[in-house]
Amino acid sequence: MYIDIKPTAEKITNNITSRISNLDIQPKLVAVTYKPDDSTISYLKSQQKTSRKFNIKYEIFEAISPQNIFKLLNELSKDNTVHGIFLTHPLPDVNEIEALIQINPDKDVEGRHPYNLGMLAYGNEKFPPCTAEAIIKILEDITNITGKNAVIIGRSTAVGKPLALMLLRKDRSATVTICHTKTQNLENITKNSDIVIAAAGKANLITKNMVKKNSIVIDVGINVVNNKIVGDVSKDTSEIADVTPVPGGVGKITTLLLMEHVVKSVELMLKNSNK
Amino acid sequence: MYIDIKPTAEKITNNITSRISNLDIQPKLVAVTYKPDDSTISYLKSQQKTSRKFNIKYEIFEAISPQNIFKLLNELSKDNTVHGIFLTHPLPDVNEIEALIQINPDKDVEGRHPYNLGMLAYGNEKFPPCTAEAIIKILEDITNITGKNAVIIGRSTAVGKPLALMLLRKDRSATVTICHTKTQNLENITKNSDIVIAAAGKANLITKNMVKKNSIVIDVGINVVNNKIVGDVSKDTSEIADVTPVPGGVGKITTLLLMEHVVKSVELMLKNSNK
Repeated sequence: MYIDIKPTAEKITNNITSRISNLDIQPKLVAVTYKPDDSTISYLKSQQKTSRKFNIKYEIFEAISPQNIFKLLNELSKDNTVHGIFLTHPLPDVNEIEALIQINPDKDVEGRHPYNLGMLAYGNEKFPPCTAEAIIKILEDITNITGKNAVIIGRSTAVGKPLALMLLRKDRSATVTICHTKTQNLENITKNSDIVIAAAGKANLITKNMVKKNSIVIDVGINVVNNKIVGDVSKDTSEIADVTPVPGGVGKITTLLLMEHVVKSVELMLKNSNK
Repeated sequence: MYIDIKPTAEKITNNITSRISNLDIQPKLVAVTYKPDDSTISYLKSQQKTSRKFNIKYEIFEAISPQNIFKLLNELSKDNTVHGIFLTHPLPDVNEIEALIQINPDKDVEGRHPYNLGMLAYGNEKFPPCTAEAIIKILEDITNITGKNAVIIGRSTAVGKPLALMLLRKDRSATVTICHTKTQNLENITKNSDIVIAAAGKANLITKNMVKKNSIVIDVGINVVNNKIVGDVSKDTSEIADVTPVPGGVGKITTLLLMEHVVKSVELMLKNSNK
């Protein structure tokens, strides 16, 4: 079966709408990019569309050089009218981590600053990476995670690693295994898991014969095959397991959560200025 | 068999000694404590002794109130003559994370600041938590980690979580499972692992029948049973697996690495001031 993520999406949408209506100021999200490729441009357009839907201001800054990225991030970090900063990736010719640490952690709505990542280890999820949080939200809406065996395939800083920290938090308490290209006998591990999170970026990596009956499979992959977008999980897997669809699954929740983070940033700013 | 950690200890000791001899200034480590209990006092004494051995200055600051801890950490963070700050834990009546973020990340030689923890997710191990790093050093001296199944029992911010991030780094590439009190069928997992890291703080948690023949078992536990210090791993486990001893195993390397971090802090400070 495919998992219906509409209820999760609606809940988050309503939550954002209600919180924005309580704000006196209009939230503002900015994207910083450099030499954007086609897929980056299309992603930014979709962000812009979602921002508009929530009446969140949205502005794109295109850097003219690697040095200019640093300057932009510094200026936007100090600009009181900006509440969230999104840095596109990959960035050609740029040391990504050096760029990321220029972002004020209080505006790091994508949760990529090391400070915010480290906070996850302490159970503080102010700004978790949006994709990792989307997976948590979907899981929490359909199952009780505690004591379940969860396997994450993919060890990226945007998904795999932060998600592991989040699944380990005491109120969730999954047993977590992280796999990757060097993993031996992946099938043995996925077959013994109640929850499989496929975040490797490889079409058809997970197939029906690799998962346990009635397990939950979260498909994080976005792969282009024959001009069509497909995930990391084969179609037939849904015959025995509950699988999130691609497109319109994790990705949809991810974009909503980015908006939610911008609203949270405004709320925290207002709270701190009232102190 | 028990693993002989002397070669690892000697290598690190020689490395520290040689690097200190190249410095024009004497490194200084300070400990900040509040209402220290007996075990904290004994730990500080052992730190002091090791510091003396390396000719590292060592000073203990005992806070008179929770507020005073914050003040001390702030002052010491700004003091140019201080190169490493160690905050004892647990701290009674204090929000530990609020205290930790007062420490300048450049002097966070214990690797507990969220910034330094988050950096581990990016593969940057400037100041990893000393115990987690000790486990890595011991493992790298006796085996090739790549592709091995490693299970960590214990999800603490000082050991389990940072160690998972470190074992996943591309040059190591273990497949990592993190277990804890809510884990079902721990034995199934440990029996299928090439490397078992017991960091739960529970005497005899790991026994001979739970591990694979010829596996490597790293014992991080320090438990007091009948006035004797024992680890998390039962004695008989060493009959079929290679086990690190307690005491004198991981703990010994941990203290050495704290010293190494103080030296590194001085080196980085000098390098930055020459820029």
